[in-house]
Amino acid sequence: MEDPIAQLVALFARLPGVGERTATRYVHHLLAEERSLSVALGESLGTLHARVHRCIECGNWGPSERCAICLDPRRDRSMLCVVARVPDLVALERGGVFRGRYHVLHALLAPLDGMGPERIDVVGLAERVTREGVREVVIATPLSVEGEATALYISQSLAPLKTTGGEPVRVSRIASGIPHGGELEYADPITLGRALEGRRSV
Amino acid sequence: MEDPIAQLVALFARLPGVGERTATRYVHHLLAEERSLSVALGESLGTLHARVHRCIECGNWGPSERCAICLDPRRDRSMLCVVARVPDLVALERGGVFRGRYHVLHALLAPLDGMGPERIDVVGLAERVTREGVREVVIATPLSVEGEATALYISQSLAPLKTTGGEPVRVSRIASGIPHGGELEYADPITLGRALEGRRSV
Repeated sequence: MEDPIAQLVALFARLPGVGERTATRYVHHLLAEERSLSVALGESLGTLHARVHRCIECGNWGPSERCAICLDPRRDRSMLCVVARVPDLVALERGGVFRGRYHVLHALLAPLDGMGPERIDVVGLAERVTREGVREVVIATPLSVEGEATALYISQSLAPLKTTGGEPVRVSRIASGIPHGGELEYADPITLGRALEGRRSV
Repeated sequence: MEDPIAQLVALFARLPGVGERTATRYVHHLLAEERSLSVALGESLGTLHARVHRCIECGNWGPSERCAICLDPRRDRSMLCVVARVPDLVALERGGVFRGRYHVLHALLAPLDGMGPERIDVVGLAERVTREGVREVVIATPLSVEGEATALYISQSLAPLKTTGGEPVRVSRIASGIPHGGELEYADPITLGRALEGRRSV
């Protein structure tokens, strides 16, 4: 029979950023705590995937078929923000800077890892843009090689789309530059180059 | 109905060193991963307390009534090391520096938090020392105020004990001083004082 402590340590160590030492600390904490915490955590984890649904509109997670954002009539249906993963959507929502709706890809192009264009449903995205009368698609994939490749692929795929008024659907990309409070001295050359390139008149 | 993601985030955030951000990261990772990881983690947590026993000899955790250390006939039964918590025992075992057996208190004196002497079973400890013919008790509680108070209380309680040969049971305290590789420049005054006080002839 496997040692239950070692088994649980190995499972915790599969969480992001958790090594054997942190995992051991969690297990010892749970053992020293009341039994109720590990039981509650165990039940919540065991039923997680059954209780969390991927929104059939946008791919966000939520307790029902459609997520709270897609169900909210106050959201601007003419703006669609494309993100790679749900945590990116959560970060944008935390900022409260975007009033449109989202489209979560759950993947990025990464040919070296076998993540080719077939992993990204651009046909479904294009259909959604047309069906919902979206006027602008903001591509907010990460500013990494994979994120940029995916942004390029999506922008090319959506280029032919027209709005109901017959105008081209605007496809934009989030800005890249020095973060708020960031020092130029410590910025990498690519970020500095992008900050210069994306300069705006004042 | 409570949001399942928020519920699991709140439970993860009760682990030591885990804030809401880290907890959210864990949940998103589990949602993006295969269902099998959260189910396995859930089952392991749900049965943790049922599968892990507190050793009836020493208080260590293990898969059966007696822990692996107490069952090991090669351990020196004349030496007993008193620790506050199981992770301290694990750290000593990792170092491989102690060949005796352990006694885990699972508590420290902390009168301000209502942890008085009644939380520490010195009678049971004294009985064990006599029953097993222990010749030396090494007190390895932390070098904190609580750990020092506990060490003092235990050493006073064990002072009258005699070995089977009629000699006093030796009660010792682990050394305090500058850690290996540590710089005197950055050591606090209490540690420096202890390092001087505990100096040895060379």
